[in-house]
Amino acid sequence: MMDNETFRRQAHQLVDWMADYLKNIEQLPVKSQSKPYEVFRRLPDLPPGQADDFEGIMEDFREIILPGMTHWQHPKFFAYFPANSSYASVLGEMLTATLGAQCMIWETSPAAAELEEKMMNWLKEMLDLPRDWDGVIQDTASAATLSAILSAREKATNFSANHRGFPQGRYRIYCSSQTHSSIDKAVRIAGLGSDNLVKVGVDDTLAMNPDALSRAIEADMAAGLHPLCVIATLGTTGTTAIDPLEEIGRICTQRKVWLHVDAAYAGTALILPEYRHMARGMERVDSFVFNPHKWMFTNFDCSAYFVRDKETLIRTFEILPEYLKTATRGAVNDYRDWGVALGRRFRALKLWFVIRDFGVEGLRKRLREHIRLAHNLAKEIEAADDFEIMAPGPFNALFFRWHPREITETDRLNALNAALLGELNNSGKLYLTHTKINDQYIIRMVIGQTYVRERHVQQAWEVIRQTANSLRERL
Amino acid sequence: MMDNETFRRQAHQLVDWMADYLKNIEQLPVKSQSKPYEVFRRLPDLPPGQADDFEGIMEDFREIILPGMTHWQHPKFFAYFPANSSYASVLGEMLTATLGAQCMIWETSPAAAELEEKMMNWLKEMLDLPRDWDGVIQDTASAATLSAILSAREKATNFSANHRGFPQGRYRIYCSSQTHSSIDKAVRIAGLGSDNLVKVGVDDTLAMNPDALSRAIEADMAAGLHPLCVIATLGTTGTTAIDPLEEIGRICTQRKVWLHVDAAYAGTALILPEYRHMARGMERVDSFVFNPHKWMFTNFDCSAYFVRDKETLIRTFEILPEYLKTATRGAVNDYRDWGVALGRRFRALKLWFVIRDFGVEGLRKRLREHIRLAHNLAKEIEAADDFEIMAPGPFNALFFRWHPREITETDRLNALNAALLGELNNSGKLYLTHTKINDQYIIRMVIGQTYVRERHVQQAWEVIRQTANSLRERL
Repeated sequence: MMDNETFRRQAHQLVDWMADYLKNIEQLPVKSQSKPYEVFRRLPDLPPGQADDFEGIMEDFREIILPGMTHWQHPKFFAYFPANSSYASVLGEMLTATLGAQCMIWETSPAAAELEEKMMNWLKEMLDLPRDWDGVIQDTASAATLSAILSAREKATNFSANHRGFPQGRYRIYCSSQTHSSIDKAVRIAGLGSDNLVKVGVDDTLAMNPDALSRAIEADMAAGLHPLCVIATLGTTGTTAIDPLEEIGRICTQRKVWLHVDAAYAGTALILPEYRHMARGMERVDSFVFNPHKWMFTNFDCSAYFVRDKETLIRTFEILPEYLKTATRGAVNDYRDWGVALGRRFRALKLWFVIRDFGVEGLRKRLREHIRLAHNLAKEIEAADDFEIMAPGPFNALFFRWHPREITETDRLNALNAALLGELNNSGKLYLTHTKINDQYIIRMVIGQTYVRERHVQQAWEVIRQTANSLRERL
Repeated sequence: MMDNETFRRQAHQLVDWMADYLKNIEQLPVKSQSKPYEVFRRLPDLPPGQADDFEGIMEDFREIILPGMTHWQHPKFFAYFPANSSYASVLGEMLTATLGAQCMIWETSPAAAELEEKMMNWLKEMLDLPRDWDGVIQDTASAATLSAILSAREKATNFSANHRGFPQGRYRIYCSSQTHSSIDKAVRIAGLGSDNLVKVGVDDTLAMNPDALSRAIEADMAAGLHPLCVIATLGTTGTTAIDPLEEIGRICTQRKVWLHVDAAYAGTALILPEYRHMARGMERVDSFVFNPHKWMFTNFDCSAYFVRDKETLIRTFEILPEYLKTATRGAVNDYRDWGVALGRRFRALKLWFVIRDFGVEGLRKRLREHIRLAHNLAKEIEAADDFEIMAPGPFNALFFRWHPREITETDRLNALNAALLGELNNSGKLYLTHTKINDQYIIRMVIGQTYVRERHVQQAWEVIRQTANSLRERL
């Protein structure tokens, strides 16, 4: 094991590597060009018996690991949703790792619990969420959604499912056909069964149709089934569609159904007054999740989960063995009872660093710039002869496809766009992903990376057009 | 947002703070002396509108946050189980934060997936686990145990519970009365109901009694219930008892019941040949979890979960929406399908750094030193007139109580020991926790911190005796 002085020296060298990496990241291919098992085969099959020195470890990192990395902090990372980070966030993670505190309960680090509570309050202010809600940091929106569904399950069964197992009768969950796969996963985990997940139809913006929701609930009730929970999404993964919260909320209140809002990506946009309209109806919501680790410059993982009634959440998860009893219980927040995992990292620290390093206005400025870049590019795509916008992007995400005039068959267009996407990603010059809408293959481009600037978007668009042209010549 | 040059400068300053912190950590009170809401009240209620500079942020960290931290990397942290870290691990976390890769699937960072696969292979070698098992890093043992129970549930229902919800009939889970609370939590989450968690009796070492297990399973079968899963523990949380794997395995094989092994803490001891005896019967095990983030010098979170049959695990969790389809699917490991969360940090990196920085022999040396320190202290406690060992500690954990000769009533002894523990922890000189066995209040002392040396243990024992003496004078 290295000693303190070696650590100090190595950490200084590492800091220079880190700063250089982020400074020169554009020179690297954004998507790894590594082939399956190329990295694996270069690593020894057996662990070392004796200690290696850190210079050798770092050399292997640079030679073997780095070429196999896809660079999520590269300004030309337009794939999926970003997991954007920032300098302040990295500094926060350095401290979190050094402190190495396991923040399962208040006593195991009071400051971690209290900073978390304060940060959740700050986020309520920033996003203009109801001030009487309570929040907790979870690892991912998957875990938060599972928490919401379990809370709904326990509330509906008067907390008996936790003890007696699954009650008679079938419980139904509702979401739109565009909802994220984590909902399906959570419904399975909770023992409800994915057959009881009702995929409600959408309107032509791909947002949930509240009338269809209402009809689905009524039909289920008529059939003797129990509507348990509706999951509305602000910013779906496929096309960032916005489900109409106010109408959905009215239906949920009327039918006494738990309303969970998955705003994993687009929730960050609520810090912009011009996007607050999508929060209308929030007072009817039971639980809400958004991920600062997506579009709020905070390292993965950091998912902010809010509930209207913390007692229901705590009763859903609370178990108190002797070795976890403390004198402060009840007077403070013991966040181990607010989710699935017992152990917890000190994640509030990086969030505090980020909010202070940017300031709320700084965050707003950066988000607005992302949105502006996306809107400008949308105009260029619309103006291009052989590209078309396929879905409205209310935020900073674009959904388009290449559509050479002479080609009309969907299958051929799909194949062409898949080929274009493959070629683009293999170039290492940018990274995009895809989705499908009505069986049409669509390229997704999300302009939300921390370090993305106008020139990166322009260069990306140039590469997209050039690559399409070169593909066309080979058709 | 700070720029690259500012980051470089601040990160260098932070590295010096980090090295100094770890060097001088003994001068800090190990357990925070902070009162409820002391930290909270010192933080502003509203987020800053404008950016703060990092000097100011760090000043607030030092002034407001640090006094509220319990120092888990303090050599006199003897509480719970350690979440021990090491210098190499912190360097690994610095890199993970800088890369900021979200490692949900192979394509989003091939090297992360392949290093993870390789590290799981290394751990199989190190712990002498069956080489045909497959492994994955999860956040906590809570999540791994939930994964095991869900896999058992799906296998038993031919993967129908995932889809049709809970089937008729009652499924039963078995663990000892000493098993960790996360089992209870997982049984609830999975919809099985804690009433179906059978707490099997223990022998006088507090290990599961296999005859009692056998009888419980038979009684349930006779009553028409379905034995689903047994959870055996190597190193229980209360007293690090070791359930007899070989006999439990034989019963599980005979009854076709899933056998999950929770070795969260003590699994690390399997790198020592002298502890391999507790692994006898491992070939009958279906799933196994241990936490390098507890006793293997790797920052929380890093939980290693192994399964005999990866197809069952993947089928339990797999959902494939369009936006996650990739060309390499099936040819590589997409770890998002190996657990609850979709998003994943690059956690294999720090594990690689730790194993290489220590070498396997270096890890063994450190563990053996911890065990030696614990055994020596146990002898001193046994030799002391007014202290007694309350349970055998086969690893590096001690279970004792203060027992002045003249006091015989259990209630009074319990109150005395609780008072002693409170006084010790409030002193800031060491941090211990407690458990109860047969209603007796017992002090737990785990000697597993990375930086603990003989003098720390000696000083701690001195403080314990002095504090007891001073309490006695006040009786």
